[in-house]
Amino acid sequence: MDLAVDLSARGDRSTAIYRALLDAIRSGRLGSGDRLPPTRDLAGDLGVSRNTVATAYERLAAEGYLEARVGAGTYVTDVAASVRPRRRAAALSPRRGWHFTPVPVSGQAPKPAYDFRVGIPDASLFPFDTWRRLVAAELRAGAHSPGTYADPAGHPPLREAIVRYLALSRGVGADPDDVLVTHGTQQALDLIARVLVEPGDVVAVEDPGYPFARELFASYGAHIAPVPVDVDGLVVERIPDRARLVFTTPSHQFPLGPPLSLERRLALLEFADRHRVAVIEDDYDSEFRFTDRPLETLHALDGAGRVIYVGTFSKSLVPALRAGYLVAPPTLHAALCGARQLADGYGSIPDQAALAHFLADGMLARHLRRARTVYGERRALTIDGIERVLAEHLELVPSAAGLHVSALFRDPSVVDGEVAGLAAAEGVVTEPLTSYGGERPGLVFGYGAAETASITPGLERLRAILDLGGPRSR
Amino acid sequence: MDLAVDLSARGDRSTAIYRALLDAIRSGRLGSGDRLPPTRDLAGDLGVSRNTVATAYERLAAEGYLEARVGAGTYVTDVAASVRPRRRAAALSPRRGWHFTPVPVSGQAPKPAYDFRVGIPDASLFPFDTWRRLVAAELRAGAHSPGTYADPAGHPPLREAIVRYLALSRGVGADPDDVLVTHGTQQALDLIARVLVEPGDVVAVEDPGYPFARELFASYGAHIAPVPVDVDGLVVERIPDRARLVFTTPSHQFPLGPPLSLERRLALLEFADRHRVAVIEDDYDSEFRFTDRPLETLHALDGAGRVIYVGTFSKSLVPALRAGYLVAPPTLHAALCGARQLADGYGSIPDQAALAHFLADGMLARHLRRARTVYGERRALTIDGIERVLAEHLELVPSAAGLHVSALFRDPSVVDGEVAGLAAAEGVVTEPLTSYGGERPGLVFGYGAAETASITPGLERLRAILDLGGPRSR
Repeated sequence: MDLAVDLSARGDRSTAIYRALLDAIRSGRLGSGDRLPPTRDLAGDLGVSRNTVATAYERLAAEGYLEARVGAGTYVTDVAASVRPRRRAAALSPRRGWHFTPVPVSGQAPKPAYDFRVGIPDASLFPFDTWRRLVAAELRAGAHSPGTYADPAGHPPLREAIVRYLALSRGVGADPDDVLVTHGTQQALDLIARVLVEPGDVVAVEDPGYPFARELFASYGAHIAPVPVDVDGLVVERIPDRARLVFTTPSHQFPLGPPLSLERRLALLEFADRHRVAVIEDDYDSEFRFTDRPLETLHALDGAGRVIYVGTFSKSLVPALRAGYLVAPPTLHAALCGARQLADGYGSIPDQAALAHFLADGMLARHLRRARTVYGERRALTIDGIERVLAEHLELVPSAAGLHVSALFRDPSVVDGEVAGLAAAEGVVTEPLTSYGGERPGLVFGYGAAETASITPGLERLRAILDLGGPRSR
Repeated sequence: MDLAVDLSARGDRSTAIYRALLDAIRSGRLGSGDRLPPTRDLAGDLGVSRNTVATAYERLAAEGYLEARVGAGTYVTDVAASVRPRRRAAALSPRRGWHFTPVPVSGQAPKPAYDFRVGIPDASLFPFDTWRRLVAAELRAGAHSPGTYADPAGHPPLREAIVRYLALSRGVGADPDDVLVTHGTQQALDLIARVLVEPGDVVAVEDPGYPFARELFASYGAHIAPVPVDVDGLVVERIPDRARLVFTTPSHQFPLGPPLSLERRLALLEFADRHRVAVIEDDYDSEFRFTDRPLETLHALDGAGRVIYVGTFSKSLVPALRAGYLVAPPTLHAALCGARQLADGYGSIPDQAALAHFLADGMLARHLRRARTVYGERRALTIDGIERVLAEHLELVPSAAGLHVSALFRDPSVVDGEVAGLAAAEGVVTEPLTSYGGERPGLVFGYGAAETASITPGLERLRAILDLGGPRSR
């Protein structure tokens, strides 16, 4: 038998012989009924002890590949024939109802020269030294029972700190038991969808709106009802009566920008109460308010217990923390905790404990004060540039908060995706408004990650591109 | 007007007045058309500046609660009446198809005196100082682009380290692109279920088996087909032909213990190929092997690309790491990455980078060698105790790996849940076998978290309880 055994490799020699024989069996070089050489002979050929070969034979026999026949030697069994792998085929494919393929994420692209990408905060503002110290303290040996499985709702001190933060900053009244800590907004939406969305249910989303929410609900078999948005936010009267769930971004409509007006807020709550609808209030970047006093949250206005409030630290701090939360009525608490157990068990308790300290010790408030100053300046420069440099092409959409602004093309025949593509090729990266749905062409300008000094030059460069190319007709 | 304003609280006085007025409006103490006192009067009453009161009034006016009537003062608007919350009702409830409520987790109970709980490793073996150093290094400012959103498949160096680890220790051949890093086994199963399980699909699970897998698939609308388990593992011939997905634990059947025999492995793969079925191989605690050489994994035997391999660091290291992975055929990669984006975006990159170093620098191998020694001793004591002390009542189920063993009651009329309850009251915590499904009463003994010196006394105490109570009939 021609047995190739590489005895120079790491690992014991018996295993090398075992693997070589197994390869021979699985490739068909050794077939059912073939007789193996006596251990003494193979040991001699390979220059190893007889015992080394015998161990390999015994292991293959224990696994059913070899059998000893009395007085006749060792043979390959019938079982061995059937383990020969065919070419490893591409046999599995997603279910017929699965339509979502991954979207390239911001971390996979190099930072553009003029970075108006949406939803990216400035990580250089985050106090990493403090954070590292806090996390390291929570990773000391034996802290937080690391061998056992933890509460799916999250670390109680963090839930308490979130409640205090929401009460002070957002007027949201909640009990720590109403809070479930998540890995961010997306997981909060996912848990809500699990427990509320039955296949076939109608889910109303803003159009234009947050694509990952829409795709998530669709992945659970929901019928998506896109509802238009205007300068007062979601057009509540256009929500279909048969909706079971409404997803909205009242503080800073994503991506268009306006807050949902008080009248609309009250109308939405009235609608929800009348039609027994659940409302998700996604308050993703309201920490950065620059002009008006904020309106009351839907959650604070809601007397009927129909609003689920969702928040994140991805914008107020950084996405790398993977931290967000939801605040839900007590009647959903058990189901949401169960959903979390089924989804991924629970989150990192040391990280949650560190974040609890970060909030309770005033470090979040300090960071927000500092970040508001920086983002406020970038926002002012962006708005100024749109209104001064780009006014001929674009009309700013008023907003009061957040890390981005939108502007509509004055010429409704402009293909915004084409403009954004041309600009990106010149290093000016914005997002085309229609990529979020809706029909009005426009551009969305994130200023969280834009270098302050790059904003005006970036918008001037965009102006040059727009002047040169002229608006393209569809 | 009797306005209670607590000016001792933190925050500015104007906000305190705003809140007090808002409370009065929302509670109905101030109704539509009510006139507010002039700012000068209220300022005098409260001992604050007129400007402070005016700011609060302006904010309420901007929000639509107050209006100024020319020459007549400031009045509560009509809008205000409708914001009065009714009693915050329990209006939302889970969808009709939602049945799962959370299960109490090990971290929520105090450690028992005789701790035979299942699935809990000994966290005192984990090198926390090393881990803390590794994590802290990855949290240095600016590492890993913390402001942007990362690859849903996970940090590439960790995927590479997992591939090398699997090739060496499990004979699993994979490409880093086949690997998706998750928060543990449960999230791996969840992502697989999202992309493979259509409502109404039949999913075959082991019975007794892993409850969270069964509940997860059911939550996606699957019809669950429980398939019996015997001393050779899953009884493959009992899998219904119409199954679309099979969930199995071949190395160490959970919870019963035996490995899936080679014949059964081959039969399962043949079944999967013939019926175009996907197979999940959950290899949750195979790192701890104590007797036989391991059988080849299903993944390694699979020539048709029908097996998805799932692993976790919750048992080999500690659950607190929230780290696991799946290895799937390339045809599922995009869908699984998309599912991860919809589920929770991506995982913590600093944690994944730290774990990559832990694996690549040989620290996992070192930990496993040390842990195998400790667990091996505990396993031997547990098996010895069952066979020596408890032999009259229980019959050990043979197994070769893992952190628990099972034993069947010799008297099949024993109600194992009752016995486990009696024992738990005496500090001896085991898990009743029928709580995992199936019909055979038995007890499952975890030894991962059991103090070595407590094992024999714990089993002796259990013997005393069994002798005293006698087997209880159903």
